[in-house]
Amino acid sequence: MFIAKVIGNVVATQKNAKFRGMKLLLVQPYISREGKLQISGSSVVAVDSVGAGIGECVLFTQGSSARLTPATKDAPVDAVIVGIVDALEVEGRLLEKP
Amino acid sequence: MFIAKVIGNVVATQKNAKFRGMKLLLVQPYISREGKLQISGSSVVAVDSVGAGIGECVLFTQGSSARLTPATKDAPVDAVIVGIVDALEVEGRLLEKP
Amino acid sequence: MFIAKVIGNVVATQKNAKFRGMKLLLVQPYISREGKLQISGSSVVAVDSVGAGIGECVLFTQGSSARLTPATKDAPVDAVIVGIVDALEVEGRLLEKP
Amino acid sequence: MFIAKVIGNVVATQKNAKFRGMKLLLVQPYISREGKLQISGSSVVAVDSVGAGIGECVLFTQGSSARLTPATKDAPVDAVIVGIVDALEVEGRLLEKP
Amino acid sequence: MFIAKVIGNVVATQKNAKFRGMKLLLVQPYISREGKLQISGSSVVAVDSVGAGIGECVLFTQGSSARLTPATKDAPVDAVIVGIVDALEVEGRLLEKP
Repeated sequence: MFIAKVIGNVVATQKNAKFRGMKLLLVQPYISREGKLQISGSSVVAVDSVGAGIGECVLFTQGSSARLTPATKDAPVDAVIVGIVDALEVEGRLLEKP
Repeated sequence: MFIAKVIGNVVATQKNAKFRGMKLLLVQPYISREGKLQISGSSVVAVDSVGAGIGECVLFTQGSSARLTPATKDAPVDAVIVGIVDALEVEGRLLEKP
Repeated sequence: MFIAKVIGNVVATQKNAKFRGMKLLLVQPYISREGKLQISGSSVVAVDSVGAGIGECVLFTQGSSARLTPATKDAPVDAVIVGIVDALEVEGRLLEKP
Repeated sequence: MFIAKVIGNVVATQKNAKFRGMKLLLVQPYISREGKLQISGSSVVAVDSVGAGIGECVLFTQGSSARLTPATKDAPVDAVIVGIVDALEVEGRLLEKP
Repeated sequence: MFIAKVIGNVVATQKNAKFRGMKLLLVQPYISREGKLQISGSSVVAVDSVGAGIGECVLFTQGSSARLTPATKDAPVDAVIVGIVDALEVEGRLLEKP
């Protein structure tokens, strides 16, 4: 899984039938540089399965495992948000609501 | 999933039997840089399952999940277009027909 | 899928039993830069399932979907050539036999 | 699999039901440069299935195979720690407790 | 698949039960630059299924397909060595025992 920040959402009317009712969020993964977490350049679209919102730090899963939540079962999706991160402890430092 | 721009199409006569009748589009994923979406350098060939056209902004799925649309069932494909993006809201800004 | 140029082949005598009789080709994916396709630096070994030859531009599939051709069924392979590209149309320009 | 250093842990209260009781560790993969192992910039969140701790060098598995441990069965996870590395022998040099 | 050089091995006592008896090798993928194969910076840990040794050039498979050898069946592994490369022919040049 990767940690990411929710930066936006995606609206699509013409789409695969399995996507009806899905909330599609744009997330940016964090990378770690010299002990600090930084936003990376890539943008992934992930289905929300936990009630995440813009600006929150989330945990998302990719690949075939992304189909193993109630929100994504049997759908052609490859990324799903599976948790909202309350805190991170990195190299002994605690980051709350990162 | 990733957001991408459709930049071209691919013609192949000699191919796996499952590819007959498939529309193969060349797409370029977007990345996010300083709050703006930019075209990246990589080019992916994705099967169209939603009636996408050149120049449109689309959503595509990769990996085993790419086989879960009516257009790609049981075929040796690893990328499929699953939606046409009407609008994106990124960092509070609305981008229509991106 | 990715578009790639076939640049060589691989000979291996000591190998998994499922690889007997398989043609293993070395391919280099193309990337798109400023509207032009260029060869990238990575080299992938893909099983040929369509009769491709050195110098040809091909389409290849990766991941679990690579096992869905008659040539690769149930084999421990993660890349297979599924088509020979006759033409590409990129940003309105037609490239024949790219 | 990749070798990585465990650098932190992740706390999430609002999450997919399958994640209850899972220990989520933040790991940084090593890369090899001029015969030496160095920490790379990316950060992956992996489920611990072997009792790993902060600072340890571990082996982790990604993709669908990450669901094949007792700790991760049928869960929407894409990375799991499967071993604690006691020693590495690289280019003839032995690195204990790397 | 990728071509790689075997550069070391990994010792882990505390590990998933399926890893007992597995030989874990550290391999570095080759990339192609200006017609020459060069070692890249990444290091992958792959299970040996063909009797490979340090210094040899091998072919390895990643993802779910890595579980399709007798040595790796149903195990949480994502990379396996499936062949030892005797020769490569790249851009018309033959490289024996690369």
